[in-house]
Amino acid sequence: MNTYNNSIANKGCVVWFTGLSGAGKTTIAQALEQRLIKDKKQVERLDGDVVRQSLTRDLGFSKEDRDTNIERVTFVAKLLARNGVLVLVSFISPYKKHRETARMEVDNFIEVHVNCPLEECERRDVKGMYKKARAGEIQNFTGIDDPYEAPECPELELMTHKCSVDECVEEIVGYLQKKKLI
Amino acid sequence: MNTYNNSIANKGCVVWFTGLSGAGKTTIAQALEQRLIKDKKQVERLDGDVVRQSLTRDLGFSKEDRDTNIERVTFVAKLLARNGVLVLVSFISPYKKHRETARMEVDNFIEVHVNCPLEECERRDVKGMYKKARAGEIQNFTGIDDPYEAPECPELELMTHKCSVDECVEEIVGYLQKKKLI
Repeated sequence: MNTYNNSIANKGCVVWFTGLSGAGKTTIAQALEQRLIKDKKQVERLDGDVVRQSLTRDLGFSKEDRDTNIERVTFVAKLLARNGVLVLVSFISPYKKHRETARMEVDNFIEVHVNCPLEECERRDVKGMYKKARAGEIQNFTGIDDPYEAPECPELELMTHKCSVDECVEEIVGYLQKKKLI
Repeated sequence: MNTYNNSIANKGCVVWFTGLSGAGKTTIAQALEQRLIKDKKQVERLDGDVVRQSLTRDLGFSKEDRDTNIERVTFVAKLLARNGVLVLVSFISPYKKHRETARMEVDNFIEVHVNCPLEECERRDVKGMYKKARAGEIQNFTGIDDPYEAPECPELELMTHKCSVDECVEEIVGYLQKKKLI
């Protein structure tokens, strides 16, 4: 594995979206992806649901499986970012430990806390998961019977119950520009 | 996932080394990696042993586990290659089916058959695996009690019992230049 790649044309980075299910991580990541593609940037989005098809199909939602899941995603994000790709990772990633590991592993790690009150996420309940979790049909559901450890000092905090998707995207784009990552 | 990335600075490709254990896949891939880094190319090497640490630690050598292993590696190679990276994959990858899937999934797939007679690989036995396989201590070992399906029309065939590492590397470099991939 090439750990001393010095031929990178563009700086890569990892924009890591963390937050409760239904907070809006994927929605914002998708909108940001479209915006960056329009600007002809090299971008890859690693999303819980998509990645599960190829990379982590064997894994469930137990604590141990989440560990492995995040570990694999971090590995892939690292490879892409060090080759100049803007990597958008959207995972609940409820444990601080995992996000800190990812931060240490990759260059230009940008933690984005997609912050939305549990009540609002549960009200939205896009995938019907909260209902199932409340009914006890699924276990270890973040926010219900598994903790969400909110970031203390994220690079960005987006209040999706107060701001529009476009506003959130602009905030991230502004940050990336300020840091000369785009 | 961005499937219509049209902002690629360089063409990426996947150089896929297949062959028996001990044939010289990793040795050649490492030498090629160094050569490409010297030329300031963006290169990543995905090697069985290294990838197992991060991506596929849960997997053994059963047929099913090999399937999953190759599937994950193909996914990562695809993401890297479509972002302009020269990806060097060295895996025994004994089944034609897997290599054909990889070929369909990625752009610019270059199958390199690292061809060395079983007797010579077994004589080398760098990791002592053949000895263990012959003693029945490990099962499903390619070439011993699991088949190696040799490529019929690989882009390149390297006879490592006849050619030096440098000669093999030059042959690949020549091919990549001819195809305008470097």
